[in-house]
Amino acid sequence: MEKDWDIVEVLRHSRHDWLNRLQLIKGNLDLNRLDRAKAVIDEIVIEAQHESKLSNLNCPLFASLLLKSNWEGHSFQLEYEVLQESESLTFNDCLLTNWTNSFFGCLNSAIEAFQENHLSITIDLKAEGVRFFFDFSGIIIKNELIEKFLNDPKSSEMDLVVKEFFENELALEVFMPFK
Amino acid sequence: MEKDWDIVEVLRHSRHDWLNRLQLIKGNLDLNRLDRAKAVIDEIVIEAQHESKLSNLNCPLFASLLLKSNWEGHSFQLEYEVLQESESLTFNDCLLTNWTNSFFGCLNSAIEAFQENHLSITIDLKAEGVRFFFDFSGIIIKNELIEKFLNDPKSSEMDLVVKEFFENELALEVFMPFK
Repeated sequence: MEKDWDIVEVLRHSRHDWLNRLQLIKGNLDLNRLDRAKAVIDEIVIEAQHESKLSNLNCPLFASLLLKSNWEGHSFQLEYEVLQESESLTFNDCLLTNWTNSFFGCLNSAIEAFQENHLSITIDLKAEGVRFFFDFSGIIIKNELIEKFLNDPKSSEMDLVVKEFFENELALEVFMPFK
Repeated sequence: MEKDWDIVEVLRHSRHDWLNRLQLIKGNLDLNRLDRAKAVIDEIVIEAQHESKLSNLNCPLFASLLLKSNWEGHSFQLEYEVLQESESLTFNDCLLTNWTNSFFGCLNSAIEAFQENHLSITIDLKAEGVRFFFDFSGIIIKNELIEKFLNDPKSSEMDLVVKEFFENELALEVFMPFK
């Protein structure tokens, strides 16, 4: 899992993503779909704004984990949304990152590869801390791995609530108090 | 000069560059200049191809130096062009990177800030090695710093030829033999 990402490699992945986005704009322009091309640009800008807000949250470990997640060959596609903007957060970045990393690993082993598996993370800043909402939709084939992970001491030390847990959906809420 | 670039920071700079490019496309679309928008996309793709070829040259130190150069607040804008594609090069990456890094530092001290200063690097693969052509155009105000640098032992150990050296231009050719 752990990999030493150097600047050349990070930019190689990022360039690949951006060229795909550009291709989407170009494809629409070639078909004279000007409005669709503009809409694609707006969507890309919003996505970049979430990346930017994530990068400003003062949690470099967690931000790194999320930013590179889709380049690590997981069986699920990650997207995330940061509902507010802030630069002054201080929660336990390391604890959250370790737990999330383990959760990604568990999810990878528990779901069916090559299916439409999506994990969405919503980050909601509250007065006393940050609420992280993990919402997976896709095909879970090994429930028992997820159950084991949720009962693991690693998960017990988190302020974690299981909101939904079905074959096609898993929703968890993690609360990280400010230090 | 040296800075520890983490993934969050690298992507922050890269995102900023890409959003500027996107803005250029969007600006043209808003003015209904469809052809200009397509031409901008083509230019961006070519630029990205040079970045990609640079990243594949098997010289991670030199590639990193060039990729992040425009994010380091130099008084000149860097662009580069890789004339051929290759993945099997082996030259002294460390030697070239150290020399180039010193050259960037020297140039920064020798030129007038806030002017149209451009450094273009052309990378040309030859049978016995790689030819690096450094072409600066802008305003040099401290010739003596460049003379000193070119006569420095650091430069003497390079296979270096001064092609042009005027107030507004400096052209150097560096040859790196294959190992």
